[in-house]
This record gives sequence, C-alpha cells and structure tokens, in this order.
Amino acid sequence: MDATVFPAIRPAMTIKHALSVTREADFAAWYQTVISEADMAEESGVRGCMVIRPWGYGIWERMQRLLDDRIKATGHENCYFPLFIPLSYFEKEAEHVEGFAKEMAVVTHHRLVGDCKGRLVPDPEAKLEEPLIIRPTSETVIGAAFSRWIQSWRDLPVLINQWANVVRWEMRTRMFLRTSEFLWQEGHTAHASADEARDETLKMLEVYRAFAEDELALPVVAGEKPENERFPGAVETWSIEAMMQDGKALQAGTSHFLGTNFAHAQDIKFQNANGELELANTTSWGVSTRMVGAMIMVHGDDDGLRVPPRIAPWQIVIVPMLRDTPEDAAIVDYCKALQADLAKLSAFGEPVRALLDLKPVKSTNKRWGWVKKGAPIVIEVGGRDVAGGNVSVIRRDRLYREDGKLDSTIIAREAFAGEAAATLEAIQTALHGEARARLQAGIRRDVTDLAALEAFFAEGNRYPGWLEVQWARPTGDALEKVVQKLKSLRLTLRNAPRDAAAADGACIFTGEKAVERVLVARAY
Amino acid sequence: MDATVFPAIRPAMTIKHALSVTREADFAAWYQTVISEADMAEESGVRGCMVIRPWGYGIWERMQRLLDDRIKATGHENCYFPLFIPLSYFEKEAEHVEGFAKEMAVVTHHRLVGDCKGRLVPDPEAKLEEPLIIRPTSETVIGAAFSRWIQSWRDLPVLINQWANVVRWEMRTRMFLRTSEFLWQEGHTAHASADEARDETLKMLEVYRAFAEDELALPVVAGEKPENERFPGAVETWSIEAMMQDGKALQAGTSHFLGTNFAHAQDIKFQNANGELELANTTSWGVSTRMVGAMIMVHGDDDGLRVPPRIAPWQIVIVPMLRDTPEDAAIVDYCKALQADLAKLSAFGEPVRALLDLKPVKSTNKRWGWVKKGAPIVIEVGGRDVAGGNVSVIRRDRLYREDGKLDSTIIAREAFAGEAAATLEAIQTALHGEARARLQAGIRRDVTDLAALEAFFAEGNRYPGWLEVQWARPTGDALEKVVQKLKSLRLTLRNAPRDAAAADGACIFTGEKAVERVLVARAY
Repeated sequence: MDATVFPAIRPAMTIKHALSVTREADFAAWYQTVISEADMAEESGVRGCMVIRPWGYGIWERMQRLLDDRIKATGHENCYFPLFIPLSYFEKEAEHVEGFAKEMAVVTHHRLVGDCKGRLVPDPEAKLEEPLIIRPTSETVIGAAFSRWIQSWRDLPVLINQWANVVRWEMRTRMFLRTSEFLWQEGHTAHASADEARDETLKMLEVYRAFAEDELALPVVAGEKPENERFPGAVETWSIEAMMQDGKALQAGTSHFLGTNFAHAQDIKFQNANGELELANTTSWGVSTRMVGAMIMVHGDDDGLRVPPRIAPWQIVIVPMLRDTPEDAAIVDYCKALQADLAKLSAFGEPVRALLDLKPVKSTNKRWGWVKKGAPIVIEVGGRDVAGGNVSVIRRDRLYREDGKLDSTIIAREAFAGEAAATLEAIQTALHGEARARLQAGIRRDVTDLAALEAFFAEGNRYPGWLEVQWARPTGDALEKVVQKLKSLRLTLRNAPRDAAAADGACIFTGEKAVERVLVARAY
Repeated sequence: MDATVFPAIRPAMTIKHALSVTREADFAAWYQTVISEADMAEESGVRGCMVIRPWGYGIWERMQRLLDDRIKATGHENCYFPLFIPLSYFEKEAEHVEGFAKEMAVVTHHRLVGDCKGRLVPDPEAKLEEPLIIRPTSETVIGAAFSRWIQSWRDLPVLINQWANVVRWEMRTRMFLRTSEFLWQEGHTAHASADEARDETLKMLEVYRAFAEDELALPVVAGEKPENERFPGAVETWSIEAMMQDGKALQAGTSHFLGTNFAHAQDIKFQNANGELELANTTSWGVSTRMVGAMIMVHGDDDGLRVPPRIAPWQIVIVPMLRDTPEDAAIVDYCKALQADLAKLSAFGEPVRALLDLKPVKSTNKRWGWVKKGAPIVIEVGGRDVAGGNVSVIRRDRLYREDGKLDSTIIAREAFAGEAAATLEAIQTALHGEARARLQAGIRRDVTDLAALEAFFAEGNRYPGWLEVQWARPTGDALEKVVQKLKSLRLTLRNAPRDAAAADGACIFTGEKAVERVLVARAY
C-alpha cells in the first residue's frame, strides 16, 4: 500500500508513547486501550452494556448539543415516546419485523417475588398479557402517534426528533461501536408528498455530513446504501461513511426515505386540499454513540485520544506543578487567574472551556492523563512560570518535536491568552485536515476487475482503505450473488457516493454497462 | 377556608374561559384538560406510558438545561449507566429490595420467534439465565461502579449525575405525576466522611430549592422526611414539597444521605490517609418529569397553562392575522422583522426565544392555542398594526381586564421591543409572587389537637392546604400508629421544614414534649 495513506501510524522509533500498545501493533487492542486509559467507558458487569464515564459522556453531551442545535435549526422539535413497544406493533410492518424481530429484549413480567429459597424471581402472577419489547427503534410507536396526529394536509409536515436509549441484543459487543443498549437520536417526519419526504431525507443526510465534518472534524462520504443494506421497510437508505485509521469503514449516520410503507402499515392518512384521503410519506434518520467510537478511531494516536476542540468537554486544562511547599499557594492563585481570563474568551462562538485540575495527583501523571484523554491544550504552571509570567503549553495535535521530545513551549501568559482561541481553531482545522488527507489518499478508484479487487484487500495489505468501483447496481438475486462474493472476502458494499463521477465503464461484478460508482470496504 | 388562599380560583362570572372545565369544578379533570389542550402529552397506547409532545418536552428540556447547569456548577459530572440491572444486584441491599422489589419490569428473553400461527412470541431458546430488571433507580449498578473506582482517599469525593429513563410499574397512572416510565436525573456521590456526605445531601437539597423557586417560580418547603417516608436504605431523606392549587402537597425532589448502608452492601471501601480501610459514605438525589406536573398545578388557570418565562420554550409568540389577501405579505414581513429584533434581546442572561407562528391555522385559533399552552407573551399583528407601527400584546399572567374582557394592548412596536425583556422578568416575578402568597396563606400553624386537625381536613373543606404541627418525632411502632391514623384521614406526613420555628409545645399525636414541627397534608 501507499505509505502516505497512514502517515500517523509509521513507527517513530525514538518516541516512547503513552499507550502500552500502538495502532500498528494491534488496532483492536489499541482502541480498547484508548477507551480505558482516557477513562471514557468501561464494562458494566451487565451483559453487552457499558458504563460511559464522565470524559466519554462529556464528549457525547457536546455532540448532542451541537447536533440538537442543527436539528432544531432545520425546524424539528423534540418529543419523547415510550421505551416499551407492544409486541403486536411489530407484527404490522412485515419487512420491518423481518429486519428487527430477531434480537430484542422482551419484558414478560412486571413484578418480582421471593421464592422458597429466599431469592427473588419473576412473579408468575404478574405475567404480562402481551409481552413488551424494549425499543430497538421507534418507527412503530411513533407511527401510531402520527396516525392520531395527522388528519388533514394542514397537519403536515410533522417534524420531530427524540434523544433516547435503544436496545438491540448483541452477542459480540465492542464499546461504543456495538453495545446491546446504546444512546442515539431518531428523527421521524411525515409529509404530504414523496418528493418532500425525499428532500427531507437528503436534507438530514446533509445535516449529518456537515455536523461530522465541521464539529467532529470527521471526513465522511455521503451516499445511498445499496438495496441489501437498506433499513428494514425503507425505500431508500442513505449514509455517511467514515474511514478509520485501520482502513475500515464505519457507518456514522443514516437517513431513510420510507415512502408510504410505514404509513400503510400504520394507517397514517390525511385529507388533501381536494378532500381526498392519501397516505403520508415518512422518513427517519439517526446518529448514535457509535459516533464516539468513530471519533476515537479517526483522531486517536499512540498517546491516546485527540478530541477536536469543538467537542472537547474541556478545551484547555491547566495543571499546576505543586510540590507541597509554601510556594504552591502562589501557583494556584496564578492558575486561577489564568482560568478566569480564559473563561472570558470565545472560540467557535462559544465561551472557552478551561479546567484547573486541582486533584491530589502528581503533576506528571496529570499531564499524561490529559494527553491520553486528548484535551486539545494542556498548560503546565510551575514556580518558574509564575516568576516569569509564563505558561508551558502542550498542543495535543503536535505532541512531539522533530527530535522526538515532548513539545512543551514556554510562552508569556498574556501572549498565550491572546492567541488561545485561534490556537483551538487551528487544532480543529489540523485534525480535520489530517483525517481528510487520509480519507482522500485511502480511496482507490482505478480497480476495474475482481482479481485486482481481491489483491487489493488481500491479507498482506493490512490497512487497504477503500475501493470505489463502477457497477450496474444489480438487484434481487443478482445483487445477492455480489454480496455473497464480497462476504467471502470479508467485504461489504458501503454506499454510492453522491458526489462520485458518473459511470463510464463496465460493472466490476457483472461486466454489464455500469450505472454508478459504489464503495467496497471492510467495515465495523 | 380562608378565601384569600386561592384567589385565582374564585369564579369570575363574567368570563368565558378557554377550557371546558374549571379548577373549581373538577381539579383532576382540569389537570388532564390542560395537558391535552396545551398539547403537552397524551396516552401512548402502551400501558402506563405517555407520549411527551413538543410543548411538554420543550418545557422539560428547559428544566434539564437549567438544572444541569446548577449540577455542573456544584462540581458534578454526567455519566451513563446501563438500563438493565441484573436481578442479583437487588438482593444485596435488603432494605432497598424491600422498598423496590415489588413492581418492576422484568426482561426474561432476548429474542422473538414466529409461532405456528404466524405470530411473534418470546423464543424459549433465548431465555436469559438471570432476568434483567429495568432500572427503577440506579444505586445498585452505580454502587458496583463506585466499588471499582474507589481505592484510596485520593479518589474521593466521586460526584456524578445521570439523566435517564426509569421504570416503576404503576397500576394507576396520571400523566407526569405517576407513569410507569418516567424521565429524571439521579445524582450519586461517595465521600470520605459522613459529615461531608451529609453536607452534600443538604447542598443538593438547596440546589433543588433554588432551582424550583428561581427557574420554575415554584415556591417549596425544604425539610427532612419522617422515618416512614425515607428512601429504601437511606439514613436520612430530605425533600422539597410544593403546594398545588387544590391544596395538596407534591414532593418535587428528594436528596438522600445513605450513610454506609449501600457502601456496606456493595463493598465501596477506600484506604484513608493512615492506610486503614474504611467504608465510603454515599448520597443520591433526584428530580423527575413530575416537576412538569407540579408546574401545571401551581401556575395553570382556567384558560390553560401559564409557563414561567425562564422555562418557556417560546417566551414570545407572534401571530400574524392573515386573511388570504395581498396585504398578508406585508404583515408577514413586519412580523419577521419583529422576530429578528426580539431574538437580539436578552432576558435572564439568555437570548429571548421568539417564535413566528406561520402554520395554516385561523389566527384566533392560534391566539387561543398559545394562551392554552401558556406562552408568556402573545403578540398579534394585523394590517392596522402594520400601518400604525404597532403590535397587540397579550400578557398571559394578566389575561383579562377588570371588566372581564381579554386584555390585548396596542403598543408601538419599538416601545414593546424596548421593554420585552423587562416584561418577561416581570411575568416570572408575578407568577412566583402569586404562588408564594398562596403557599404562605395555605399553611396553618395554630392547630394543636387531633380533633381540630380532623376538622381542618374534613370533606367540606375542599382545598384545605397544609398544617404545620408540633410533634415528638416518634419512631418505629409509635410512628406507625401516627401514620395509620393519618392514613385513615387520607393524610400524610410531608417533611419537617428546615426553617420552621423551634418546637415549644406538645406533640399533637402523643401529647409528649414536641421536638420539631412537621407538615401534614393530602398529597399526590
């Protein structure tokens, strides 16, 4: 493979990194190590579920706030629907059932009692007449509400969203990427026409794309999923796909045009301006805590996480270098004044988030703790800094000097404060630029036959990236044949990029005239 | 009863109100009518669960934002713990089990399959080895995490909070007040000493008190719950209690000092500075969507809800009076400019939230819709207003003039914009003042014998308010006797107010020397 694709993971022999495992040595182990060393999340003791710790949850909260603003700015309102969905609701939409019926948490009792051995057991007297399913997604229960709310064209469009937890039982789980319970937002809308619903689907795809790029510094490819990857019951499914540093793809958000499929199953009808009864067209779209996993695997390095400043819970962390001497008080005062000054600054149109870390921990441990957590800027302040009116500044996006030493720069305090906001903006831009260069270099577009495709993804090529190939967009059995062939190579079809060039050759799978280009990749 | 206690519900014969039922006629029906007419929530079709619609959820989101700011300002961080709690976790803390074991949703299967009749049923092959409980509260699962996180005094205090949904199976439900699933925040902390944990308990009680008074304009009494009302497993439970317009009490938030009870059951131990192993002291505290119900029953009137401006999703709603004539365009332009000007203003330290309502609905219906929703200020703009550079202003806290007519005042547009922020602040103050006067007038403190107590709460007195009585704070069986006596009168002990006068008489229940004062009331 082209060595420029993943420049960040070339071994730097002179540097002893903060993590015990590198991306190069074992990407999966590196991922788990980042999560654990950055105190983002941990196993909960409850099968398939994780505990999201303050630093991980703080990042999710920032994502929520920024995405919520965009969802509201496009006219959507938040609601809340029940966690429980009666089993019968799932029986209405046949395709949807088929896609989801398999692995769901089923509530069958509403009470516990003590058994004869003094243990607690579900009370046989309290068995539910109809089992309740913990929502894996809410189309069915929200569709039932739409059916009540919508009578006339005047009631349309209905544009709502909910932030919620959902459960899809998973046998093999991986933190943030695949957990039985996860957190997400799910938007649901109903429209008077198919065109309007399809516009909505693409509008929200664009909201996701812009959110990923601008807030998370996460370059993505927006496109339509092939038929076999559609959401159960959807007419079209669109996604944004991000490239991880191991070259795999991760679907980071989806937007579905549901046509009248759910409206038909759930009786969502309205009287149009001519007094005729019509089925509504609906959409749904979602982004989840998976996005946190994507952010780790795109921006992390061998010293831990690197959080883009826009979504960092703390953008600047001040570490006072205390020694249990009387001098400490002056250092703390100096740091408090600095924190207060920084908090008055504005970056990205919001107040700067600056933390003074006063925990009773050795200052070098604190420094490396914040490096591993990926705080964009770490400031160290010792007695000499106070005396000279300086601060020692570490930028997380360029941690080492050319000679492999930690790049800690002494700057006059006023000068640092004066440029802090601009530095945060520069870090955001740098992380985005680095990831975008990697994505661009990581997609090959010149492979036109299956043998070359197989060679590209062969074992020796550990971080192959993606192929964008031309295809005839087969459907049904013909598509299934392609999918099975790719599956045998542990590959999947990702999406047909919206901004891809027009097809001008033959389908790599069938040899027929190609109609579009589609991405092929290993995926999470 | 004293007629000044509930001045707002004196019948005003000359006014035809917007709701079909008044507080005076049927308080419970009025409550449901407000919720439905204000589009706040509705039955979901799922037993015991409601759908929270945009206006209701928007109010909850404002509460979340403002309370979350206060929780973070006091040093707490948000996390997320699993929805599922293994049944065995509940068996560890005996008292806690006793309090919660009864009515919980139990997950027993993780898959559905089709049966021979083509219906879906829980798959017998996918029965869980250990049932999972949907969290009714998270002390057990968070305690297990604390036990992992806490090793040394350096790890303390741990100060965390989570926003989550919880489930307590309810047979009789009432929207916002008692639903099987509800939304809340639950804070959980661990400390090195009992004193510090107790201070934390009272600090968060004060956060709740200030939040209720300052943001929700909800006057409350903060105090300690009697022993029989303690959270299962707590050493002390404190609450804030609000008075509804029917004179009943509603517990609007609780803060628990758990001592070492949970630490003992869950092995939360730390090495102190002397190297000795000690049990941590823990606390927990929570506020839920019940708060929305409290807000309705304190501020609502016979025209619907009145939302305090600080928590109103829209503080000012602009209704253009359109007539499907060419003049409409000028009206809409005028309204857009007004909305833009208002959005530049700041009230309560935040940008003013102004909505221009352009839905295709008759403008008088819109006006009354927003009155019923309780938007603090409704602005109507017709052709004449545009011509004169005016707006017609309705203040929701003083809807009618002395003569019973709707008080819609024509004001110059510039003058209105100039005083809009101050008006919003005046409405917040007015709602708080009205509710505080009602609470103060509604507590009687001069009842010293049981006969007078019974008379006070007798049937003829429909909106009795509360009694603050002196008592000896009995425990065990003696307390149980008091509780049963009160229960026979449909009364409960609420709390012993922190700011009550010292006891100086005899216990109303036992005749012994009283040690404190306690509130007796009907309650939700």
